[in-house]
Amino acid sequence: MKYSLILLLVAFVSNAQIKKEQLDLMPWPKNINLTDGTFTINKNFKVNITGNPNPRIFVGVTRFLRRLDGRTGLFFQQDFITKINQEPSAELQINCVQSGKIELYEDESYQLEIQSDKIIINATSDLGALHGLETLLQLLQNNSTSYYFPTVKITDLPRFTWRGLMIDVARHFQPVDVIKRNLDAMAAVKMNVFHWHLTDDQGWRIQLKKHPKLTELASDGLFYTQEEIRSIVKYADQRGILVVPEIDVPGHASAILTAYPEMGSKVLPFSNANAEKKQGLLSLSNYSIERNAGIFNPTLDPSNPKTYQFLSEVFDEVCPLFPGAYFHIGGDENEGKDWDSNPKIQEFKKKNKLVTNHDLQTYFTMQLVPMLKKYKKQLMGWEEIMTKDMSKNAIIHSWKGPNEGIPVGESVANAAKNGYKTVLSNGYYIDLMQSINDHYLNDPIPQNSNLTPEEKAKILGGEATMWTELATPLTLDSRIWPRTAAIAERLWSNADVNDLQSMHKRIKTVSFRLEELGITHLRNKEVILRNISKNRDITAIQDFSNLCEPLKIYSRNAGGTEYQTYSPLTLFADACTPDASAALDFDAAVSLYLADKNKNNAVLVSSFLKKWIQINKDLVQISYNAPQVQPILPLSKSLSDVSEQLLLVMEKNQVANSDLLNQLLKQCNSKEHADVELAVYASLKKLICS
Amino acid sequence: MKYSLILLLVAFVSNAQIKKEQLDLMPWPKNINLTDGTFTINKNFKVNITGNPNPRIFVGVTRFLRRLDGRTGLFFQQDFITKINQEPSAELQINCVQSGKIELYEDESYQLEIQSDKIIINATSDLGALHGLETLLQLLQNNSTSYYFPTVKITDLPRFTWRGLMIDVARHFQPVDVIKRNLDAMAAVKMNVFHWHLTDDQGWRIQLKKHPKLTELASDGLFYTQEEIRSIVKYADQRGILVVPEIDVPGHASAILTAYPEMGSKVLPFSNANAEKKQGLLSLSNYSIERNAGIFNPTLDPSNPKTYQFLSEVFDEVCPLFPGAYFHIGGDENEGKDWDSNPKIQEFKKKNKLVTNHDLQTYFTMQLVPMLKKYKKQLMGWEEIMTKDMSKNAIIHSWKGPNEGIPVGESVANAAKNGYKTVLSNGYYIDLMQSINDHYLNDPIPQNSNLTPEEKAKILGGEATMWTELATPLTLDSRIWPRTAAIAERLWSNADVNDLQSMHKRIKTVSFRLEELGITHLRNKEVILRNISKNRDITAIQDFSNLCEPLKIYSRNAGGTEYQTYSPLTLFADACTPDASAALDFDAAVSLYLADKNKNNAVLVSSFLKKWIQINKDLVQISYNAPQVQPILPLSKSLSDVSEQLLLVMEKNQVANSDLLNQLLKQCNSKEHADVELAVYASLKKLICS
Repeated sequence: MKYSLILLLVAFVSNAQIKKEQLDLMPWPKNINLTDGTFTINKNFKVNITGNPNPRIFVGVTRFLRRLDGRTGLFFQQDFITKINQEPSAELQINCVQSGKIELYEDESYQLEIQSDKIIINATSDLGALHGLETLLQLLQNNSTSYYFPTVKITDLPRFTWRGLMIDVARHFQPVDVIKRNLDAMAAVKMNVFHWHLTDDQGWRIQLKKHPKLTELASDGLFYTQEEIRSIVKYADQRGILVVPEIDVPGHASAILTAYPEMGSKVLPFSNANAEKKQGLLSLSNYSIERNAGIFNPTLDPSNPKTYQFLSEVFDEVCPLFPGAYFHIGGDENEGKDWDSNPKIQEFKKKNKLVTNHDLQTYFTMQLVPMLKKYKKQLMGWEEIMTKDMSKNAIIHSWKGPNEGIPVGESVANAAKNGYKTVLSNGYYIDLMQSINDHYLNDPIPQNSNLTPEEKAKILGGEATMWTELATPLTLDSRIWPRTAAIAERLWSNADVNDLQSMHKRIKTVSFRLEELGITHLRNKEVILRNISKNRDITAIQDFSNLCEPLKIYSRNAGGTEYQTYSPLTLFADACTPDASAALDFDAAVSLYLADKNKNNAVLVSSFLKKWIQINKDLVQISYNAPQVQPILPLSKSLSDVSEQLLLVMEKNQVANSDLLNQLLKQCNSKEHADVELAVYASLKKLICS
Repeated sequence: MKYSLILLLVAFVSNAQIKKEQLDLMPWPKNINLTDGTFTINKNFKVNITGNPNPRIFVGVTRFLRRLDGRTGLFFQQDFITKINQEPSAELQINCVQSGKIELYEDESYQLEIQSDKIIINATSDLGALHGLETLLQLLQNNSTSYYFPTVKITDLPRFTWRGLMIDVARHFQPVDVIKRNLDAMAAVKMNVFHWHLTDDQGWRIQLKKHPKLTELASDGLFYTQEEIRSIVKYADQRGILVVPEIDVPGHASAILTAYPEMGSKVLPFSNANAEKKQGLLSLSNYSIERNAGIFNPTLDPSNPKTYQFLSEVFDEVCPLFPGAYFHIGGDENEGKDWDSNPKIQEFKKKNKLVTNHDLQTYFTMQLVPMLKKYKKQLMGWEEIMTKDMSKNAIIHSWKGPNEGIPVGESVANAAKNGYKTVLSNGYYIDLMQSINDHYLNDPIPQNSNLTPEEKAKILGGEATMWTELATPLTLDSRIWPRTAAIAERLWSNADVNDLQSMHKRIKTVSFRLEELGITHLRNKEVILRNISKNRDITAIQDFSNLCEPLKIYSRNAGGTEYQTYSPLTLFADACTPDASAALDFDAAVSLYLADKNKNNAVLVSSFLKKWIQINKDLVQISYNAPQVQPILPLSKSLSDVSEQLLLVMEKNQVANSDLLNQLLKQCNSKEHADVELAVYASLKKLICS
């Protein structure tokens, strides 16, 4: 009885006006005008569609309804929306003027108006309407007994037209269901381009009828059938997502050449030759699927007509599977070693007045342009394809930055200045395990650039790149999400939507809601930890994983040879992610304390230290029965040791032993254990060195 | 330093001899002879295959290696096993005499011998070898620093040849990846028949070129393409699993008739007729996809040649997709109402001297026999097909039992006595949310039956049936596993392997290890609870879910109309499973206490009661912000109330107020809240009534 009175009171109180800051929307809309009321959802909630939308709207609206009833547990009576004006008196009315096309520069705008008794989405096309539905889902609120939306007027449209995610399915194959759920997640944060990196040294993933050896010999049985590709392209289309396939040439070609070595550039001295492969006094090498990571030599021979014959036939078979206007041909990281040592290729260069390997590669790439044009596709490639003779119709995919010795923003600015449409990925390399902050603050338009408005307009947007040397279906989602949601906001919202604190607050909810789409970034962490702990209590190891982050940039896979493509990625490091949550909490506590060393703030910091001492004890216990815990013990011990010393200072008011503290601190900065680093190191350093 | 000494000690101690009771094998092997030593696994571990196995062995052995390195974190050098005798000096040698066939009565035996420096699997065929590898994986042990197998000799073979799991993909469609991971889980416990219930009133799930309306009009867009079906059949074949497809006829036909109403039995009076569908003075009805659960009237018209034409063409297209020797045609729950009220059908009966609807259905079913024989397939059907004129070649799928008014074992005994091969599913209806104990102790050979050995041999085995009225891709695995592993043991191991305590102990590990195959029974529970708690701390609601079980038998979906097929199954009940873990623990504590009411035992029981009082408080707090917690509060309150009273008796030595206690206890038996029941009720009753 008592609790129902409290309930009434709370229910009354919690329908108090929502403030904008309380809304967990991402990407943040262009314009949002919140008012005082609420629209309460009950099981009679229905949806109606009017106008001339593409039929994809029916799929999207039905899914919206099921996601909403899944979240609320309300038993909506409406089952499937399959026709225009099926429910004229529905509370949610969606109107689309025209059918949306899966192309760049489409009008993706929408207006969302929530009143107390109805909701209206108006959009130029179904593309905007689908975006509006995602915003509506993010607006869902609840009190103790019911679900509701706040009354609001939103008008919204994207800043950039290219808001992409690339998934590399060559280094680690990603099955159809993994791709599809990531398309759903993209749509949830209004991303609209899926760049599918389908081939690389480690595998060819497209089944071709005319060239069956590619999958028979160079895929380890892991590939997509053409029906599967069509299914994924259709799935993407239904979500307003353009698919850009990539077949990476002329480098990154180990897989292609494993199947068809006759197109390879590498030659062997005659004494090693297999007579069948003779090429003058030299013979062609064999190739095999690459099992390591890195930049490799196998490269297609640009002087061999067979190469162009092959590629032409490949495009003939692959292009019809992809209705989109762009085809990515890779073109990156060709160091030209096998070209340099092939006399026939050298002769070809001379004959065609191609001075450098860049010139030769440009020649090669330009042969592909008409092959793609035949299917009304524009060529796109990594920035290495941008040479003086490359057609200005090509889209330049800008990826180099400080890790490659290029200043931030220079590559994308160059492309724009040279008159090319360009997409930025540098700064969005989510495989490098860097903080969400770095990606969020990375703007496609370079700061302090002297780009004219015309040149700025050439920067189509950006693309998060999920290279999968170290990501399997078990861990992929945790490496993409939630950081890619912050990138999605960077690409959709105004440039001045850049407050880190606001982003961190909103992303907690956005991240949680991705689970509804099947995203496994949260749930699979415990699966990995249960395996490591042999099904014992995972509390301590889970707590410790929230303090650690995987090694960053290219340091985890030392030399590219520590892990092979078939090596286990079920280790402690695979349960860790960037932006370790407990490290963020500790950093906040340290900041508070350093600003005001009062007792409460000191106690908060000490509570972390005490917990870490306990975690270490617990991990030692667990390690007696868990070999995979052994490698992390040095780190938990280092953390425990420095915590003990710090506690002596903070709690027992002992004088700090600087040398000792610094030595223990240094141990906490080790990168030598379990392929992870202690994410609390920076905050500990602040604390110790203050 | 200290811990490394302890480590050494423990390492020494924990390589002490394993006892049989410590092994978590399921199904328990026929013969197992454990010796004193160990085989330590290091990264040089390799596998070699000799003999004449089917190529499926290469897929299976490669997967075995990857599962082993995934569990251990060891970086095995061997990537893919693709050829016979690829690694002659490998530590693990597998020899298969011949190629295994995916058929009944195959020799699935194996011998597994683990010595300290080598492991040998000998099997008649790859089928046995794959079983041996699953046993080997289950034998994996570890100490603090390494992984090892105990030295052992095992010889093993199954008791029954039909060890099946049926998944109903009609009531709730289950995508390809869901089916495939369940095939992996089946193989892990040596199950070998996948019965695929592909069609029912709620949907038709097979894409047919010749009859496209079935998927266009009767699938809600959820179906398998023929390529997907072939892919699943191949996946099953690689795991030694026979696929038995089911197209359920002549009843359960709402979906078929939605697409092709001309074959339906229901007639309408002429005044309601659509002139095109005239049939004399009556006209045929239209049909629609069924959204509720239950037994429905739509039935194929057995007097209409079109029906047989249709079925013949369907079998022509479907049979080639399935290489197995059996095709299930359903035949269950045809109450014949539309037959009775159709004059044309009544006339047909008279003309063909068919007296009852059973006779008519037998006539119908017998027409299907040659359609299937054309593709070398034997007909199988639910037990209703067993009438005096049904061909003895048909396999009878026995499903009726006490819920249908039939004594346990009578149906399967009847089939055997009548000379039919038969498979038992009664007692393995895993959708009914009953305890693993019930399924485990349910033996295919009826107790006290007077079956002759010949008749007993007609009982091929059994099949767990996963009907999906209330199971979606999110929850399916939690409804199948781990209980089906216990059924797998019942069907493989000796009849006297039936100790409940041993089964419960072993199944904890078996259940955990299923996660490696992608099974979501553990991880998805928290996804559901996070949604319900709006991403707040789920501890209390998780604890409470471990005390509750979903309502059993057919009581959750009241009248079959409480839930439609599109209703949300993301509720608290969907996070609960049978055999609620905390309830089992509480029962153990109560049993201890009732046997000896000493202080320790009393304290243990009290600790549960105190926890439940706290859980209730926590849930009330959470409910202020979580509407979906509201429905469970009456249950948590009932539990808290009775706990408070019991504590007064147990801790404060107050005299028990019997009336009050019994009244509070009765509230704990309520089935009225959140579609769950308090699984601790029975133990509370024991406690209170003692």
